[in-house]
This record gives sequence, structure tokens and C-alpha cells, in this order.
Amino acid sequence: MGRLSELFEPETVGVIGATDREGAVGRAITANLHEEFAGEVVPVNPSREEVLGLECYPDVTSAPPIDLAVVVVPPPAVVEAIRAVAEAGTENVVVITAGFSETGSEGAARERELRAVAEEYDLNVVGPNSLGVMATDVGMNATFGPESARPGSISFMSQSGAFITAVLDWANEQGIGFQDVVSLGNKSVLDETDFVREWGEDPDTDVIIGYLEGIDDGDEFVEVAREVTDETPIVLVKSGRTDAGAQAASSHTGAIAGSERAYEAGLEQAGVIRAHSVQELFDYARALSGLPEPETDGVAVVTNAGGPGVLTTDAVGDSRLGMADFADETIDALSEAMPEEANVYNPIDAIGDADVERFGEALEIALSDPNVGSAVVVSAPTAVLEYDKLAETVIEKREEFDKPVVTCLMGGDRARAAEEVLREFGIPNYFDPSRAVAGLDALARYRDVRERTVDAPERFDVDRERAREIVSRANEREDNRLGIESMDLLEAYGIPTPAGEIVDDPGRAREVAESIEGDVVLKIVSPDISHKSDIGGVRVGVSDEDVYDAYEDVVARARNYQPEATILGVQVQEMLDLEESTETIVGMNRDPQFGPLLLFGLGGIFVEILEDTSVRVAPIGESDAREMIDEIRATPLLRGARGREPADVDAIVETIQRLSQLVTDFPAILELDVNPLVAGRDGVQAIDLRLTVDTEEL
Amino acid sequence: MGRLSELFEPETVGVIGATDREGAVGRAITANLHEEFAGEVVPVNPSREEVLGLECYPDVTSAPPIDLAVVVVPPPAVVEAIRAVAEAGTENVVVITAGFSETGSEGAARERELRAVAEEYDLNVVGPNSLGVMATDVGMNATFGPESARPGSISFMSQSGAFITAVLDWANEQGIGFQDVVSLGNKSVLDETDFVREWGEDPDTDVIIGYLEGIDDGDEFVEVAREVTDETPIVLVKSGRTDAGAQAASSHTGAIAGSERAYEAGLEQAGVIRAHSVQELFDYARALSGLPEPETDGVAVVTNAGGPGVLTTDAVGDSRLGMADFADETIDALSEAMPEEANVYNPIDAIGDADVERFGEALEIALSDPNVGSAVVVSAPTAVLEYDKLAETVIEKREEFDKPVVTCLMGGDRARAAEEVLREFGIPNYFDPSRAVAGLDALARYRDVRERTVDAPERFDVDRERAREIVSRANEREDNRLGIESMDLLEAYGIPTPAGEIVDDPGRAREVAESIEGDVVLKIVSPDISHKSDIGGVRVGVSDEDVYDAYEDVVARARNYQPEATILGVQVQEMLDLEESTETIVGMNRDPQFGPLLLFGLGGIFVEILEDTSVRVAPIGESDAREMIDEIRATPLLRGARGREPADVDAIVETIQRLSQLVTDFPAILELDVNPLVAGRDGVQAIDLRLTVDTEEL
Repeated sequence: MGRLSELFEPETVGVIGATDREGAVGRAITANLHEEFAGEVVPVNPSREEVLGLECYPDVTSAPPIDLAVVVVPPPAVVEAIRAVAEAGTENVVVITAGFSETGSEGAARERELRAVAEEYDLNVVGPNSLGVMATDVGMNATFGPESARPGSISFMSQSGAFITAVLDWANEQGIGFQDVVSLGNKSVLDETDFVREWGEDPDTDVIIGYLEGIDDGDEFVEVAREVTDETPIVLVKSGRTDAGAQAASSHTGAIAGSERAYEAGLEQAGVIRAHSVQELFDYARALSGLPEPETDGVAVVTNAGGPGVLTTDAVGDSRLGMADFADETIDALSEAMPEEANVYNPIDAIGDADVERFGEALEIALSDPNVGSAVVVSAPTAVLEYDKLAETVIEKREEFDKPVVTCLMGGDRARAAEEVLREFGIPNYFDPSRAVAGLDALARYRDVRERTVDAPERFDVDRERAREIVSRANEREDNRLGIESMDLLEAYGIPTPAGEIVDDPGRAREVAESIEGDVVLKIVSPDISHKSDIGGVRVGVSDEDVYDAYEDVVARARNYQPEATILGVQVQEMLDLEESTETIVGMNRDPQFGPLLLFGLGGIFVEILEDTSVRVAPIGESDAREMIDEIRATPLLRGARGREPADVDAIVETIQRLSQLVTDFPAILELDVNPLVAGRDGVQAIDLRLTVDTEEL
Repeated sequence: MGRLSELFEPETVGVIGATDREGAVGRAITANLHEEFAGEVVPVNPSREEVLGLECYPDVTSAPPIDLAVVVVPPPAVVEAIRAVAEAGTENVVVITAGFSETGSEGAARERELRAVAEEYDLNVVGPNSLGVMATDVGMNATFGPESARPGSISFMSQSGAFITAVLDWANEQGIGFQDVVSLGNKSVLDETDFVREWGEDPDTDVIIGYLEGIDDGDEFVEVAREVTDETPIVLVKSGRTDAGAQAASSHTGAIAGSERAYEAGLEQAGVIRAHSVQELFDYARALSGLPEPETDGVAVVTNAGGPGVLTTDAVGDSRLGMADFADETIDALSEAMPEEANVYNPIDAIGDADVERFGEALEIALSDPNVGSAVVVSAPTAVLEYDKLAETVIEKREEFDKPVVTCLMGGDRARAAEEVLREFGIPNYFDPSRAVAGLDALARYRDVRERTVDAPERFDVDRERAREIVSRANEREDNRLGIESMDLLEAYGIPTPAGEIVDDPGRAREVAESIEGDVVLKIVSPDISHKSDIGGVRVGVSDEDVYDAYEDVVARARNYQPEATILGVQVQEMLDLEESTETIVGMNRDPQFGPLLLFGLGGIFVEILEDTSVRVAPIGESDAREMIDEIRATPLLRGARGREPADVDAIVETIQRLSQLVTDFPAILELDVNPLVAGRDGVQAIDLRLTVDTEEL
């Protein structure tokens, strides 16, 4: 593929299928391009000599060289049209035409052809089924939408063309500007990851935003986005969050929905800030595109009205930020500058008769305080407060102190002009205190993304060959599942398991029991019996003398329960002191988009009833493994809460990492559960294991 | 007090302290009244003969009779001014003047005087420190704010005058109208409960909304609001939700903050719909003021754009509503009416070229479906879709089927005119699909409020006199606390406790133990030792033979731990089978605004680590007690999850009700904890008790 950046800075744009027939998409695109594009527009259509006053060429070979081809010919002609432009030297193509994979098998076949041609010629292809692309830098609107974007520093991709149309209409009215806009369409060649990568390198893009219904390659997206978010914030609406939404998205785009849990984890690991509505998307983007991140979390609130001040304080309380504790000098300075009735503690209530000067003084004093990382100016309209002058003062103080300031100038019309001035200087004005604080909160979230250190996955020294051999045993199982008889898989990856072995006669059971200190546990080992305890297939606290009989008993019960069951033997296992330890669970299942999704929780009711779990997309390093443990609500139980024995958290962290390595090394493992992983004061022990293997992947 | 409704329908309004001095509040009010008021405006001021062209009277005795007096004289003159208007026969007074309890002790004294005069003359007094009141019915704007409200069916109270100013400016621009508006000020006489009661009886008020920082008498508010919400929805922003916000509210209004938990429970029990921002307040109010409640929870989504359709579906998934399952006939009818590419399952995607007619057909078919309780029309702007005609069609279908329909016509300017038409017919248009669904959700919430049945508190037959005697023992304790030695308090209220008694010699301990079947538990009884187990003051599983020694041992350990401790004896208690039962906790603490707040949770980690509790304001009946149990996350554990013994939930329900009665009967009980209340398969047993008593209340 050629450099993607060229897609957004062509000197000539060809419209393949240009026309001036009223109502035709080929006319709308040509007209939109013709209006403002800094370069040359080249209509191509064998049946026209002129389109909208521009010279029209019968084919691309007779046309001047085209940097970007916009294809609007009927579906059956698309692939040939692309081949033709490619032969003529064009590297960038936008396919507007619909009727591909979104419409059934014929369309899907056509899309495969399209992809093959793109590969053959190494083309950048947007679409098919795209509204088009815009690049305000060069005045290019190569879409058939009714609106052009205003220039700005937000780059915007959307999997829904209608979403772009809807948003632009409103954004233009609000004065929100864009750098590049892309309607992704069916994403047959270029997808969200490509544009994130491209815009991450674009110095003119301050924020990347997007509306996505699915991410094709979650793994790759996380990797690329993680790097990009070091420099450029990404805010995404990923729809299909709920079951009903996922179903709707799947019927809309034909994509297989990955699990919301995987998206949540993957996007979080990628450093993406997630918005849940159009409003949130732009509330965040407006703050991120114009303001620096706060250095500390203390917020100062400056207002002329008690009620709105309290509402703002509540919003701060709801956010990751906190109300700044003012230094004594700040209180003193405010007391001096403000009237007696004012509240000089945070929120600063400069009271109802506050004019611009008093607001300015309060804001200046607040921003001088080192405990203040950001500020919200909240005002009710009054006779003495001139909003346009207030805007100037806010801009001045914001720039003087280089701290983020947002405003909530309440009231309708009155605030409009002030809002426009503020916007020009990057300061978003919000309708509601809670939205203003959400804007600041997005800045703090992004600061945390930038500042975080994510440990790279550690490579432990493991016995991969032995593990491969064990996993391959699944070939011998009809259901491709392995159970407790494969505990040596964990051993191969350095995860501690209790002493013991699987035996197939009672005499050997006794020998093993005698080699183990203290009592033992016996468990039936059978691929056909999954609830061992329920059928009496488990005996705990068995002494050496009793082992022989217990063996016979356990086997008899299993036979009795299911005469046809294959019995591989009986596991004789060291008995752990469960009173002094905590049962945890580490699991994995493979997500179609993101790959292996690790899960951690405490055993029993905590996972099953309280659903108190944390997840990460593997592979992960130490920092993520540790966060998984800290994130669950029940984590104090591992730390020794309520007089419990504290668990060896470091050992759990290491186990999670080793399992991360295992499931990454073996894509054939579809699901895996270590349940329980018992964590004591010193170390952990995996007591039981189940996994499902895709034997075709072996 | 005279009828409060007269406050909103005066024939003459007197302005006590009217003036035409520029910038004076007394001028602003006179001018606002003069502008549109249907009745007579009577300025009163001894130093003017005319104010803004109106005849001005030197005092109220020489003025015509005044129905409503608006007082704007300086603070020291307010009380006399009120007395004068009362003497002249006025029953309704709004005190605009500030400088009362919000400013310190002198102001507080002045406010007490004001309240005394109001009581003496049986006056309705709004304020002091109020922006004023409005009643659009009679064109009355008796405030000094810059804007008059438009007529409408929303009645609005606010504890912040600035909030009213800010909101009206914006609401006027949005075309949102009001019936009455009240700035509550310091609420020295009339408070939120009075206006809720009044508006509940006002046929012209469809929705009551409010901004409150505190509720003075939570108990009374719950009682009144519960009744009002049977007919009229109430939506409130109660600020000071967070710790920081509560502190800010308290410094703003001087009120003692009750706990957020109590507000949450009290408002919920009252049937109030709570909003967390200005935006939510009006998003809900707009739906509630113009639309019927949905009969079922199924939502139909009709759109011309896949992406926004998916976003809407997600919003439905997040709400209490669900996507409607279309009947087969609906699918058939849609398949017939829509083009082939359309999605006829819910969300209905009528695709990009849908015109008004197709939208109308889709909406009609959807609303005909009995599974559809409400609908959202979501549209992206297109060349073929005329928004104003779409509005007409939506109005027509909504009225035809009498089901609630909201819209999200995306795009800026384009939607404006349509939005106005829709509003006239009660249909709110929202910026964002998530807000549109939130509007429908508010309707469903209100339907649930109307339909709920709240059981009245049952009066159990209890031994109140004995209980009074036991509670009074707190008089003998320095710290006003009672412990396990007061278990008979629970017995007096019919709550089961294990067999046993408190003894003070080892011989008697043995006698008691012998009278109890099985082993016993010994517990030291001392007001000075609160963590009995930690110091070895508890012995479980003691056999009859061992009781003597165990008694000596427990006492010795207590003495050893704290030689000065008062030891009341040792409790010899039946030992319960805790393996087969579940520990729960029922507690109560008294909230300054709402009174007794009951708490329920499972014992141990569930309350302390997971904070998994439910609360209600007492007294409560069976339905609330049952809900308390159902609301906790761990509730499946009581129902027999994971092979546990199911607990006797009915017995817990009864215990909660009996405790509700106990704490209601004895306001002197400030705090009470039954911990644990052990719930077995058949019945419950209270094992331990602590309470704190306000001995002055005895």
C-alpha cells in the first residue's frame, strides 16, 4: 500500500461515474468536490463530455493522472473500474457504490474480487458502501452528503455514513471543525486500525474520534491504538454494547459481534476513551482538542450562584477528579478580593452581583493555587455579568496559567456569542455543569493514559514441547475437552499444583498417599463426569489406611452413576489447608475479535452469584495482572481483610502471567479454567483444570 | 394558613418597597409584574407617589386590598412590613429580601421573628431570600429575574434563584413552558412539601419539577409525595449527592445535610423520579408533560439509518425498557411495505432513501403491534426526507394509537422547525438517541410508580411497655449504649432469639446449659468490651461438663484484657447450626431529615467489604421489607443458590417489619444493629444486638 496520507492530500480527484443527472450520487460528489477542492476534479464517464462545467473523460487512460479515484459506477462495474484506475497509476480509491457484502452472497463474492484487485495493485481502498471522505486541509469533500466539514483538528471515522451526515449538520452549527472525515463503509481493505495509525502520525490531528460497530482485528487495533494514544487521544463510540444492540449491529454490518466484555477490556488496554452517546463523544472531543491535560486532579469551581455551584461540586464528586483543597494563601487572597458574603472555599461563590472583574480575580487566584489542576467557570445570567467580556477574561486567565478551564455559562441565547469566542480559543462551553466536568474528566483520563506504564508480557522459561504434547491429547477426546488429568500442562508452564498423581489401582493409590505428608484427596478422573463432587466422586481428608477402600468406593460410585463412562483413574492429591487460604479462579476464553480474554475472580459465589470478575486481553505483563486482582470488589479479602490470612498476591500475579503466556503460545486452546487456584500465605496451588481445544489448530 | 392556591391566582399584587430607582430589585419586580399581570399591581412606598406610571401608596392601609404582597424592603423592616400587610388582610407573602438565616446569627434571629409573625397571622410566606414567584395562568411574574416563563404545564420550584434564572432563559429558547414557578428561598414557612401538595391538586400542573439542596422534613415529604405521585409525576434534582457536594450545599443554605443514602431511599419510596443534571431534569419533564405512559415495555425503533438505529437499541438495552419482539403479522406487514433491503425486524431500518410516507407506514405498523408500548423515531437528514412533514406524520400516528412516541431527528438547523411543531403536540425531540430513550424510560418509571402497591406498615402485637423499660436501661450507661444483655428487647417485639440467659456465676451457667439441648455458646457481657471474640470473650461448642470452666475462663480473659471493665455476666446461649443457615444483618440509624433508616444485608464480608446493602425509611410494610431482601446482589444466597440451604425469607421479612415498628415506636433509639440475624430453613434467630439511645428522648 502507498502512504495512506496521500489519500487525504490528493492534487487530482477523479470521479469514476461522474454525472450531472439530478439526484444521482455521481453528481452530488462531483458538485461537492467542485465547490471547494483546492486541486483538480476529473470527472470520468464515457457517456458525458462535460459534468457540471468540468471536462469529462471517457476513461482513466485518457484523463490526467488521478491521485484519488472516487468510484460510483454500478456494482458489477466496480471491480473493473478499480483495476483500470490502478493500471493508470492511482493508488488511492474510495468506493461509494453499495451492493457488496452487506447484501448477500453475490455481493460478498464481488467484495472478495474487489479485495483481490486491491491486493494485486497494493491499493488503499476505502469502502465499498462508503459515504466518502473529506480532508478540510485541501478543501476536499469527496462524499455525497449534504454538508461539508468545517476545518478543525478532529479526525473522524464512522462505520455509519448516516452518522456522519447527522453529526456534520449539527457540528457545523456548533462551530466544531474537522481535519479528516472517513466513512469506513464495509472496510474491505482499509479499516479503523489503518486510520488510527495514519492520524496518529498526522500533526494536524489533535483528537481521533469514531463511531464503530465492530473492530475487525481487535488484537492489532489494541497494539496500534496503544502506541497512538501516547500522543493523540482516541475517543470512540462502539455501539452494540448491549445484547439487543449487538444483534442490531450484526444485522446492520453483517459482522460477527465479539463480546462487550472483550471490547471493554481491549479498548481500555488500548488507552481509548469510550463514549456512550453522540453527546459524550463530542463533549470529550471538544475538551481534548483544545485544552492541555491537568497536572493534578484538584478542580476549582468559580460561580456567581450557589445552586449551580453545588451541582458542579456533585459532578466533580462523581468524576475521577476532586474538589481542590485551597492553600491558605488562596483563601486569604480570595477573602481580600471577594465581598464578605462570598464563599471563598471551593466552590468559590462570588455571589449574584459578581461582574466580570470579580470573576476574573477569583479565577486568577484559584488558578495560581498549586493544588488546582483545572477550573470550571459556572454562571447564571445576571444584569451585571457581560458574557462576552467574561469569555475574554476566561481565555486570558486560561492561557496565562496554562491549565485547562471549561465553562458552563448558563442561559440560552445570552451565552451564544460568548460560546463562539471561547471555542475559538479551544475552551468548550457546556450546557450543564455535569457535562462541563465530564469534559475535564476526559482530559484527566487521557493524562492517565499517557502517563501509565504498561509492563510488557514477561517470557517465562517453560516447557513448551511438553505442553504441546499434553494439549494434543485432546485429539483423543470426542468433545475436545481435557480435565484434571492434564494438570501436568500447568506444571509445564511453571504453575504449582499439589503433590500427587493419577493412578489406576488401589494399591498404587496407597503408595502415592504414603509418599505425601498428611491426608489426601481422591478424585475420579473421567472425561464423561464433569460434576465430580455431586456424584460422590471426590473424597477429602483420606488417611493412608483408608486410601485403598476410598479408591474402590470412588470408582464404584462413578461406575454406578454412569456405567458407560470412561474412567482414566483416580487422582490422589495432597490435601491443602483451605481454611487458611482463598479460592480464586483464572480463566480464559477466546474472543473472535480480540483473541484470548483472561478472567480473574474469587471462587464460588463471587464469580457465579456476584459476577465480581476482571478481564484483560492476553498477552499481559505484570502491571495488568496486578490490576486484574485490584479491580475486583472482593480484593480486600486477598489482602487480609476481617482477620483473614492475607494471600500471596505476587504468586497469583505470576500465575495469571504464566497462563497468559500459555494461551498466547497455543491458539488451539479455546477455553481454559483453573478453578480453583488456591492462594495461601505463601504461594498458590492450582487444584483443578478444564480446557477445550480446537484440534484443527493443533 | 389560607389556601395556598391563592398565592398563584391573586387579583392584586402589592409590591412593598416598590421603586423606580434604576437597578433596584423593587423596580425590577414592579416592572415584571406591570408587563403582563392580568390583575392589579399595587406599589407601596411612603417616599414615592408613582412607580413606573402606577399609583404608589404610602402604606398598605391606604392601598386597595392586596391578595399577594411581595416584600422587598431592607432586612430590618421586613418583619414589620409583613405584620402590616397581615393586619390589612393579606394572607400570601413573598419575601424577596435577603439577609436572614443565610447570613449568621442576627439574620437567623430575624428569621425566627418572621416565622412567629407568619404563625400569628396564619400566613403563606415564600422566602425570605427568594427570587419570587410566577404564575403564567394570570401572567404574573413576581420575581426580579430577567425572564418571564412561557405558559405550560410544568410547575417548578427551586431552592436556588439563580437556577431559575439560568433555566428560564434556556427554556424560553427551547419553547418549554411552565404553570407556576417558585423560588423557595430560605423556606422559613413554606417548603417543598407545601408546593408538592398544592401542585398535586392543581389540574393544570402535569409535572412537578424541582431543584432542591435539602428537604426539611423528609418523613412528611415522603408521605405527601407518595400520594401526589399517584396522579402527578415529580422529578427532582437533589444536589449535594456527593460528600463534596453536600458540604457545598450546607455552606450555601446553612442546612444540615442528611445522608445521601436516606435521600435516595426516601425519594424512591415517595415515587419521585430523580434527575442528576439540569439536562436530565428537562429530558424527563418534557416526556412526562406531554405523553401517556407506555402500557408495555417493548420499544419499537424506526429509523432511516443503521448506525443511529444500533445506538438507539443500545440505549434501550441500558434502560428498564426492552426492544419489542414484533408479532409475525407485524413482520409480514413491514416486509410488504418496506423495500427489500430494509430491516423489518426491530430496529426497523427503512434505509437511506426513506421518505415521510415510508416512515409513516413503518411507524403505523409498529404501533399497531400489541407488543409495542412506545416508539422512537430516529432519523439522519437526507435529501428525500422532509423533517416538517415527518413531524406531522409522527404526531398523527402518535395520536391515532395513543402510545408515547419520541423523536431524535438528527442534524442541527434542519430539525429546528420540526422540533417546534412536535413540541406543540407534546412530543419531545432529543439531540441524542440515548436521551430520547431516557425520556421514554422516565414514562415507564412513572407508570411503575403509579401502578405499584406499597403495603402499609403492619402493627404487630408487641410488649411495648416491657420494651420501654429495657430501652430505659440506657439511662444507667454512661455511653447510652446497650448490648447483648438487652436481647429481651427483641423478644418484647416478637423477634426470635436463641434459648439462654445471662448468668453471673459458673454454677448457674451449668444449670442453664443443661436446660438447653446440645452444646452452648458463652459470651462475656460487658458494656466496655465491644469486640468480644478478639479478646477470647466468646466460647463456642461448649458441652455441659465444660461450662463451669469455660465460664471462669471467659471472665478471666475479660478481666485480664481490661481490669476496669464492668462485667454484667456471661451469656449462655443455645448453639445454632450455622453451617445450614445464613448470617444477615438488620440495622437502623436515624437520619436528621428522614428519621429511621433501615438497612439490610448479609453478614460479614457482604456488608463490610462488598457494601451490598439495601435501605428504606421506616416505617415500612411487607412489600418494602421484601424488596430490601431482593435488592441486594447476594440475594440468590438466601434463595438456595449453589446448593445452599434456602433461608426462611418470610421470617426475615417479618423481622425487618418488627424492627421497623420498634424504631418507629421509640424515637429515642438512635442506632440499632441486629448482627447477626441468622436465617435458617425454618425461621430466624437474632444472635446479638447493639443499640444507642438518646436518653433525653426517653
